[in-house]
Amino acid sequence: MTLALAAVRTLDAHDPLRAFRGRFDLPEGVIYMDGNSLGPLPRAARAAMARALDDEWGRGLIRSWNDAGWIGAPRRVGDKIARLIGAEAGEVVVADSTSVNLFKLAVAAVRARPGRRVILTEPGNFPTDLYIAQGLAAVLPDIEVRAVQAAEIADHLGPDVALLQLSHVHYKSAHRHDMAALTAAAHDAGALTLWDLSHSAGAIPVDLNGCNADLAVGCGYKFLNGGPGAPAFLFVAARHQGELVSPLTGWMGHAAPFDFVDDYRPAPGVERFLCGTPSVLALTALEAGVEIAVEIAAHDLAAKAKRLIGLFITEVEARCPGLTLASPRHGPRGSHVSFAHSEGYRIMQALIARGLIGDFREPDILRFGITPLYLGYEDVWRAAQVIQQVLDTEAWQDEAPRQPGMVT
Amino acid sequence: MTLALAAVRTLDAHDPLRAFRGRFDLPEGVIYMDGNSLGPLPRAARAAMARALDDEWGRGLIRSWNDAGWIGAPRRVGDKIARLIGAEAGEVVVADSTSVNLFKLAVAAVRARPGRRVILTEPGNFPTDLYIAQGLAAVLPDIEVRAVQAAEIADHLGPDVALLQLSHVHYKSAHRHDMAALTAAAHDAGALTLWDLSHSAGAIPVDLNGCNADLAVGCGYKFLNGGPGAPAFLFVAARHQGELVSPLTGWMGHAAPFDFVDDYRPAPGVERFLCGTPSVLALTALEAGVEIAVEIAAHDLAAKAKRLIGLFITEVEARCPGLTLASPRHGPRGSHVSFAHSEGYRIMQALIARGLIGDFREPDILRFGITPLYLGYEDVWRAAQVIQQVLDTEAWQDEAPRQPGMVT
Repeated sequence: MTLALAAVRTLDAHDPLRAFRGRFDLPEGVIYMDGNSLGPLPRAARAAMARALDDEWGRGLIRSWNDAGWIGAPRRVGDKIARLIGAEAGEVVVADSTSVNLFKLAVAAVRARPGRRVILTEPGNFPTDLYIAQGLAAVLPDIEVRAVQAAEIADHLGPDVALLQLSHVHYKSAHRHDMAALTAAAHDAGALTLWDLSHSAGAIPVDLNGCNADLAVGCGYKFLNGGPGAPAFLFVAARHQGELVSPLTGWMGHAAPFDFVDDYRPAPGVERFLCGTPSVLALTALEAGVEIAVEIAAHDLAAKAKRLIGLFITEVEARCPGLTLASPRHGPRGSHVSFAHSEGYRIMQALIARGLIGDFREPDILRFGITPLYLGYEDVWRAAQVIQQVLDTEAWQDEAPRQPGMVT
Repeated sequence: MTLALAAVRTLDAHDPLRAFRGRFDLPEGVIYMDGNSLGPLPRAARAAMARALDDEWGRGLIRSWNDAGWIGAPRRVGDKIARLIGAEAGEVVVADSTSVNLFKLAVAAVRARPGRRVILTEPGNFPTDLYIAQGLAAVLPDIEVRAVQAAEIADHLGPDVALLQLSHVHYKSAHRHDMAALTAAAHDAGALTLWDLSHSAGAIPVDLNGCNADLAVGCGYKFLNGGPGAPAFLFVAARHQGELVSPLTGWMGHAAPFDFVDDYRPAPGVERFLCGTPSVLALTALEAGVEIAVEIAAHDLAAKAKRLIGLFITEVEARCPGLTLASPRHGPRGSHVSFAHSEGYRIMQALIARGLIGDFREPDILRFGITPLYLGYEDVWRAAQVIQQVLDTEAWQDEAPRQPGMVT
C-alpha cells in the first residue's frame, strides 16, 4: 500500500528537522541516500575551511598551534562527539583513521588482559575490523582472532577471551547489536569490549556509558558529515585511562610533547591515544559536521529515522517485488536499508545515473542510507519510484559490470 | 663582516628561484623562518580546496572516489614526492602520520629479520622516532631499542641488529647523516635501514635509490608545504615490496578492498602500506604544496640554500656575539640554522613579536628555517638585524617564560 504525494508532503510539512536540510549543500536533481558512506558537504564547512586556510594557516602560520587552538582540536572535537555517543568530556579524541584506532585500542586491551589470548568478533564484520585484528594477531605473541556467528557470541565468552570486538550496527545489514547485554556478558567473562560505532554515531542514539562500554572507535565521514576520509574518533572509558597504553606511542600522546625528551611517558588522559600531529584541515571540516549533529535532539532523530525507514521499505516492497529486504524491518537496527538482488551492482549504477545515489556491497546488496538531517519523506518516496522504474524497464541491463579497483 | 643592503638586493635580483615566492601567501611584515616546522600556504591550495569542497565533495559526493580520482590520491601524490627523494613511481605512498608510518615500517622490518632483536638509533633523535620504537618494543616479543651516539653507530652494527633507524637531518642541529655510507654499513651487517626524511624531503637533495636505502618516511607539513598536520609519506624500495607486510592491515592496504572479504590479503605494491580511508581534503592541500616543489631543479635549491645559510650565519655571528652556532657551519647539513642561548625561549618570543618567526627547541635552541622557495637574501639579512636588536636591547626580558602545554 503506497502513499499519495499529498500525504508525504504533509509529513514533510510537520517535520521538526526540516530546516536542517538547508545546512547542507546538496546538488539539484539528486536524492542522496549514501550518507552512510560519505555525508554531504555542510555549508559551514566552506567558511570554516576558508578561515583555516587564510587566517590560521596563511596569516597565523606556526603561531596558530597556540593562537587558533589547533593543538586542542583533537580533544575539542572529541568532546563534542562525546555528546552524541553517551560519553563524557575527556573520554573521546579525534585521531587517525578508524583502522588505526582499532589497532591502538585492541592492542591496549589485550595487553591489559594478560593470559587471555582471544579477540572475539563475528564473520562478515566490516573488513577493516577483521583485518586489523588479524594483523595484530600476526605480530603479538599468542593472540587468536575468533570469529563466531552473532548468536554464538555468548557461548564463546570464556576465560580465554581478552576482548569482544564488534560493530554496533552492521555495515551491510544494518543489524544492531544489543550493546548493553553484550557488554555485560563480556564483563561477566572478564573481557573488555571494543565497539565500532562507524554506522551508529550521528545516526542513532548511542549510550556508551549507559552500557558500561570500555572502548569504542568510529568514523568521521559517514553520519557525522566530516568530509571524505575525515579523521576518526576513539573512546576510552575514564576508568580505563590510567591502565591502558597505546602501542602507537607517537609524540602527540606524550605527557609533555614539547619537552622533547628521549623517553616516552603517556599523557594522563585520553590524549595518550593520540599519535602523530593532528590533521588540522581535516579536523576543521569534521568539526563543521559535528556541530550540526550536536544541535539535534536524539529523540527527534530517532523518531524521524524510524518513520523514513518504514516509509521507504513499504514503498519499495510495494513497487519492487524483485528486491528482497536484507535489513531488519523493525527493531534493533541502524539507519540504512539494504535490499538484495543478484544484479545489484548494475541496478545501483542505473539508479545513480538517474540521480538516486546509494551504494552496492558485495555480493548482491543495494544499500540506501536514511539520514533524517537532510532527507525528507518525499525524497524516500520518490526514491522508491526511481527504483521501480529501473527494475520495471530493466534499464540496468545498459550498465557495465563492476571493474576491479572501482570504489563501490 | 656584514653585507650592505645593495649587495643583498643584487643577490635577490639574480636569484633564479625568486619568482616562487609569489606562489605562497605570506603575511605582510613577517619574515618567516619556520618552514621547517610548518610551511606557508601555497596560493594554489586555496583553489584546490575550493574545488575539492564544492565540486568533488559537494556536487560529486560519493561518486568522486572514482570520478575525481580520490581513491588514487595516496599513490598519485606519492609518485610526485618520489621525484623529490630519489625514488621511482610506485615506491612511495601518502598515508597517515610520520609516527604511524614509522611504526608500520619498523615492525615490517624487524619481522623481515627474524632472530635479530635490535633497532639501532641515536639518542636525541626526533622524539616520535624514539617513542614509536619504544612502543613497538613494548608489544613485540624480544625487541630492544638501542640508542648510541652517531660516532658509535658503525661499531654497533652487529649480527643482532635488524634495523638502523635514523633521521636523515637532525631536527635540532640540522646535522645530516651520510645516508649512503650508513646504509652500506647496515647492509654489510645484514640489517635494513629506515630513514626519517622529515627535515630533508623538499629541503635538500635526497637520493634514496642512489643510496640503496630500504625504507623511509617523511613529513608533509614542513618543507613540502602541505598544511598543518598534512599526511605523511612512506617509501618502500621496490625490491622489498613483496616481502614486507604492514602490521596495520587496514582495508585500504588490501589487494581488493571493495570485495569486502573476511581475510586480509596485502596489495601487491606499496599500497599494502595504506591502512584506513585516505584523508582527501588533507591530501588536496598537500598536493598543492608538492606540485610547487617538483618544479624546482634540485641544483638551484641546494645552491641557494647554501648561500642563504652562509649569509645568515655570517650576519648573525657578526651582530650577535651572545649566540652560539649550534648547527654545522658547512658540510653535511639540512636547511635550518640553530643557535643556542640560555634565554632561547624568551628571545624567540621577542623575535616573533617583531615579525621574525622561527621556533624554540628545548633546552636552549633558537631554530631558523632556510627555505629558498620563499625566502630571499634580504629576508635573512634583515632577520639578523632583528635578532641583534632584541639581544642588544634585552627586549626578551619583557617576555613570559614558557607555559606547560604551549607548542613551541
